Amino acid sequence: MKIKEEDIKFTQRSSVQEIEEGTSFSPKFNADGLLPCITVEYETNQILMFSYLTEEALKKSISLKLAHYYSRSRNNIWLKGEISGMKHFIEDIFIDDDQDSIIYVVRLNEPSKGGKKASCHVGYKSCFYRKIKVKEKSIELEFTEKEKSFNPDIIYDGIANPTKI
Amino acid sequence: MKIKEEDIKFTQRSSVQEIEEGTSFSPKFNADGLLPCITVEYETNQILMFSYLTEEALKKSISLKLAHYYSRSRNNIWLKGEISGMKHFIEDIFIDDDQDSIIYVVRLNEPSKGGKKASCHVGYKSCFYRKIKVKEKSIELEFTEKEKSFNPDIIYDGIANPTKI
Repeated sequence: MKIKEEDIKFTQRSSVQEIEEGTSFSPKFNADGLLPCITVEYETNQILMFSYLTEEALKKSISLKLAHYYSRSRNNIWLKGEISGMKHFIEDIFIDDDQDSIIYVVRLNEPSKGGKKASCHVGYKSCFYRKIKVKEKSIELEFTEKEKSFNPDIIYDGIANPTKI
Repeated sequence: MKIKEEDIKFTQRSSVQEIEEGTSFSPKFNADGLLPCITVEYETNQILMFSYLTEEALKKSISLKLAHYYSRSRNNIWLKGEISGMKHFIEDIFIDDDQDSIIYVVRLNEPSKGGKKASCHVGYKSCFYRKIKVKEKSIELEFTEKEKSFNPDIIYDGIANPTKI
């Protein structure tokens, strides 16, 4: 079933019972108007990225079944894959108990200029390509993805890196 | 390997290259001193909950290998399972490309007063027990967990519900 963006209405939050145990869709955006969003791969359950949504980004995502996110650094809504070709095709959207966070369950595709199916701008499949390794007196990161899925210098040629110090 | 909480130091963020491609652990807490955290089940990859961490909650979690979270409504750090018995035993901690969000990979256990292994205070295994169902002119929620894993009235008897309208 498809729905137009303008036909998507959120139900007003009226009781804890309805929010937690009901079937009304009442997402709660935070004081900045943002809703945390976890993106996970449909086939594997692998977590791909973490982001924030605005109301408009969420409605576009539901209507078009293509993930739209909000960029806090650029202050705009972006269609994932618009530049790279690595779109997020939405299969399901889950919401949590108090309806203040969301999961997009997505299928990936290949970057438009070559490479394997992936999601992360650094070149890995998932943004979560490192885990912590506890040593006796320190913490280090260890790579869990050994090879990049694509070459970011080719896919994002001339585009500023979104990562900030 | 175990590390004491006081021995855990974060590396100062000095370059995008080191943040994204290096092995230094440099988590970035937001303007409120919080780091978004996704909790996922070790055996199944199922996402269980979304929360925020403070620096202290993260350090305690790394040191004790038991998930500690930050409650924004109660303004304190809490050991998951302290009341219910449903602890989160940490197997791995992943961090994303720009090091501003975290995944706890955990094993669950049963509530102390009876029930199946679970995580969510409403009684379900995961906090994400509903997904959206798109109709022609509206959105509804659909339950993906059909039965509760435990009775929250028994496990949280006398404890205020954390969900806010």
